[in-house]
Amino acid sequence: MSRIAYVNGSYLPHGSAAVHIEDRGYQFADGVYEVCEVTGGRLVDETRHLNRLERSLNELKIASPMSRGALSVVLRETVRRNRVREGLVYMQVTRGVARRDHAFPKPGTPPALVITAKSVDMSKGDANAAKGVKVITLPDNRWERVDIKSVGLLPNCLAKQAAREAGAYEAWLVDKDGFVTEGSSTNAWIVTKDGVLVTRYADNGILKGITRTTLFDLCAREGVRIEERQFSVAEAQEARECFLTSATTIVMPIVAIDGRPVGNGAPGSIATDLRSKFHEVAEIA
Amino acid sequence: MSRIAYVNGSYLPHGSAAVHIEDRGYQFADGVYEVCEVTGGRLVDETRHLNRLERSLNELKIASPMSRGALSVVLRETVRRNRVREGLVYMQVTRGVARRDHAFPKPGTPPALVITAKSVDMSKGDANAAKGVKVITLPDNRWERVDIKSVGLLPNCLAKQAAREAGAYEAWLVDKDGFVTEGSSTNAWIVTKDGVLVTRYADNGILKGITRTTLFDLCAREGVRIEERQFSVAEAQEARECFLTSATTIVMPIVAIDGRPVGNGAPGSIATDLRSKFHEVAEIA
Repeated sequence: MSRIAYVNGSYLPHGSAAVHIEDRGYQFADGVYEVCEVTGGRLVDETRHLNRLERSLNELKIASPMSRGALSVVLRETVRRNRVREGLVYMQVTRGVARRDHAFPKPGTPPALVITAKSVDMSKGDANAAKGVKVITLPDNRWERVDIKSVGLLPNCLAKQAAREAGAYEAWLVDKDGFVTEGSSTNAWIVTKDGVLVTRYADNGILKGITRTTLFDLCAREGVRIEERQFSVAEAQEARECFLTSATTIVMPIVAIDGRPVGNGAPGSIATDLRSKFHEVAEIA
Repeated sequence: MSRIAYVNGSYLPHGSAAVHIEDRGYQFADGVYEVCEVTGGRLVDETRHLNRLERSLNELKIASPMSRGALSVVLRETVRRNRVREGLVYMQVTRGVARRDHAFPKPGTPPALVITAKSVDMSKGDANAAKGVKVITLPDNRWERVDIKSVGLLPNCLAKQAAREAGAYEAWLVDKDGFVTEGSSTNAWIVTKDGVLVTRYADNGILKGITRTTLFDLCAREGVRIEERQFSVAEAQEARECFLTSATTIVMPIVAIDGRPVGNGAPGSIATDLRSKFHEVAEIA
């Protein structure tokens, strides 16, 4: 079945879905995005994703392309037209099309909206989780506002590629003081010997993940304590468990950091347990 | 006359010139660009611009979309079809189109190439230069590899917009130690009381401008000394002159920084002189 993309008001065959060459997303990375998991044809944590989308747009003073209600309808219609039961829906909003100039285009320039949906074989993620994944560490060389979920992802792409070339699943980014900020497309977590989860506080230096936030809910329900604080690579390597989170990976156990095994080298029991229960607390609508 | 754009092998009407929604330039800012001035229908400093394009592509391991000779032909053809005598030619190369994944697409994925050209009323730049321009200063919050001329320009756009909203022409970016790195789309220069030009050394923290490089040639010819070193905002405000350079502005005198007049508040004589002589040393072909 051929994929369908929503582009600025039209549902188009994916192969011919296009945006103007002077879309500011293309020339300036002047846009933001969200990725929602789809399960059973329904959206996971849509409310939080659309809240964050609004926040990103507000931070950049990009207008919303449509009302939240309308966006919700289009997201579902894109999922439906692509017959996605298990997979992802991706939405991208940019500042629109204008003659090239770094400064914002004139007020009233309509933002551009692209939405795609694709099926994902979830058994691959489960298989990865069953054996655990490896991460490497790299210096965090990104800009200072990565709390805004912009499409300016070149450093993230370079880090992810470096991970792949090293035979790893993800790259953890390390700030100048030696603390892990987050992964190239995931949040970073460790579990202490006492069973306390640790993840960096969400300032401007990390993206405040939706899966991260929903995991807070799950931990509250399960009575698992979380500390929001910095942690070093060394602390992570000595931790009982490590894992990463994102909408596309949910909770993914980490079994090695820079070639050193984490814990006993097998996926951690706490991460594995939280992974199995995640959808019990996530919004699915 | 309607504009024409070159997009991946075709010359298209500008209004319908488009790239795929999964072009990595659109989803990841995974691409680079160059802008050449056009004068008398010919390209200014094409050799240096294409050298830098190659360097940017090499740094990101993006393949060249075509040979230098072919690119040179397409640049000229785009200029010709748009009947540009005085203006700009813009070229953008991205890592191409692939199913969304941060890591690089499979080897052999063809890079994407977009070229546009437009006429610019050069008398506006001359009018700006005659009265001088104002700059503001802002913290430099960009990533650590701005020596790569990537399309990840969101921080630059935000800075330029802040300048415009403050009634200024440009924003000078200031590092954590209080030194000016460069403008949001221009290099930054001051002139000392002794008539020595000062501009930051070109490490990974600035883009090594082509106009900057050609100005070194001009200064060598004119016997004007240049020091490549850091300078603070305070030093700039106390300088004899300040100016900025880029392919689109050539040499542009600055008359105020954060509302404080530079020198006597009028365009500096050295900057004005260098501006008038710039095309005597630039390659025009």
